[in-house]
Amino acid sequence: MDLGQRIEKALHEAISRAGGSGSPPQLAAALRYAVFPGGARVRPRLCLAVARACGDPFPAMSSAAAASIELLHCASLVHDDLPCFDDADTRRGKPSVHRAFGDPLAVLVGDALIVLAFQTLALAASDAPDRLAGLLMVVSRAVGGPSGIVAGQAWECEPGVPISDYHRAKTGSLFAAATIAGAVAAGGEPEPWRRLGECLGEAFQVADDICDKTANPEERGKPCGQDKAHGRPNAVEELGLEGAGRRLEALLEEAAQSIPVCPGAQTLRLTIGIESRPFLPKGFGLRAA
Amino acid sequence: MDLGQRIEKALHEAISRAGGSGSPPQLAAALRYAVFPGGARVRPRLCLAVARACGDPFPAMSSAAAASIELLHCASLVHDDLPCFDDADTRRGKPSVHRAFGDPLAVLVGDALIVLAFQTLALAASDAPDRLAGLLMVVSRAVGGPSGIVAGQAWECEPGVPISDYHRAKTGSLFAAATIAGAVAAGGEPEPWRRLGECLGEAFQVADDICDKTANPEERGKPCGQDKAHGRPNAVEELGLEGAGRRLEALLEEAAQSIPVCPGAQTLRLTIGIESRPFLPKGFGLRAA
Repeated sequence: MDLGQRIEKALHEAISRAGGSGSPPQLAAALRYAVFPGGARVRPRLCLAVARACGDPFPAMSSAAAASIELLHCASLVHDDLPCFDDADTRRGKPSVHRAFGDPLAVLVGDALIVLAFQTLALAASDAPDRLAGLLMVVSRAVGGPSGIVAGQAWECEPGVPISDYHRAKTGSLFAAATIAGAVAAGGEPEPWRRLGECLGEAFQVADDICDKTANPEERGKPCGQDKAHGRPNAVEELGLEGAGRRLEALLEEAAQSIPVCPGAQTLRLTIGIESRPFLPKGFGLRAA
Repeated sequence: MDLGQRIEKALHEAISRAGGSGSPPQLAAALRYAVFPGGARVRPRLCLAVARACGDPFPAMSSAAAASIELLHCASLVHDDLPCFDDADTRRGKPSVHRAFGDPLAVLVGDALIVLAFQTLALAASDAPDRLAGLLMVVSRAVGGPSGIVAGQAWECEPGVPISDYHRAKTGSLFAAATIAGAVAAGGEPEPWRRLGECLGEAFQVADDICDKTANPEERGKPCGQDKAHGRPNAVEELGLEGAGRRLEALLEEAAQSIPVCPGAQTLRLTIGIESRPFLPKGFGLRAA
């Protein structure tokens, strides 16, 4: 099974569980709608690619870690799209969850996906019980306070936003969790993998900021110009288009350099290079070593 | 340390972690506001009382289980009070979280509390690592889909509400998690403890339904007449005031009978009798065996 199939299978199992027998029908439908069809599944693909580079001796555990991270990402999209935040009408090329199912179900879908993410880790634990507490800590720190994605979103409620804290929390934290959780699920050391996730997360954010300024909504499947509309920090606003491009290049360079020595390092570098291409503006890419 | 002190200590530690160094200041303040000062802490007190009845050999684990359940209860209150659900202005005798901090932070506080609940279990796991997966399953099932409190709330979005599914999910599930998690954290068997939690949860709901009809908002610290205003099932509407009273009596009787044989059974029965008194209408109570 390739990485994409493993991720979809793990997500389908999780969503079928949460929306299974006894569930309110609309909640079950909205949960499925929020997760399928997916976006690019960047974070779980990164998680599994790192697990594979570390030998991936517990595939049920790494698949659960990848699914857990994607469920949390989907939860954050559903809540960020709510009228009290971005009030986004579309997501992944279709109406956002609150547009399709109403605000109450959108709040509940986000909540249920967060719970499901942790349950998914617990269910896979029989495969490698000694890794469960570590994985829970990696994932929960990436999502909750004081510096996970919830905190990143909360910085938007503050009058002064420290841009580095904001970006690190809002995007970097879940990317870092993806690389670290992939390593931990495979029995590897967590810390050597942090920088790769952080660099790719910030690169992804800068690339998205460039696209927010230069692409059109049909290409993106979501509205453009949202950062300016919501007064959010944007790398192009801050550094100019050329400066943002240089920053992106430096981050991709650092990402390539940061991959720890491991059996699958060269394959991982190639995989990340290929997989990141669709998200990068023309002319950018991860170099092979 | 008595039960109440253990619960407050565990909650303070958790909230200090989530709102600690690097947190957006308003998120940290809103997290604290949502959890302190607490209500009656009924669910975590029940959890610790059951753990104590089972010998409580891992007090860090049972305190974490109790705190985790209370954090999830607080999260559900914050989200249920939002304008798209109950639009409640007050909670525990003060402005609700969204009234005090705005809707965006109220959504994020609920999310962060859910994450924190699972992190709290993970952090205590070094005390009894083999119990972690089991506790996570108990707690996540009580909160998420298909039949946890999120599902209970989602039944309110359906045109026809099956009242037993609704009550079981909305109130019973977290009470059942409280008794089961208390037993599991203490190394006991989960299933014999389910019925006690379910009976007390439904009794609590019926007592609350009676108070929703008969008490005034100052006594309750939250608005009255909300069930009718939101078209929600209410035991008094369904059974009449006398019928609801009989139902409450039967549930308290069954709760008392359902306590499994264990060293602390008699003390537990007395504790529940004393602790439940403030929530029951006059003339009701748990009988000693």
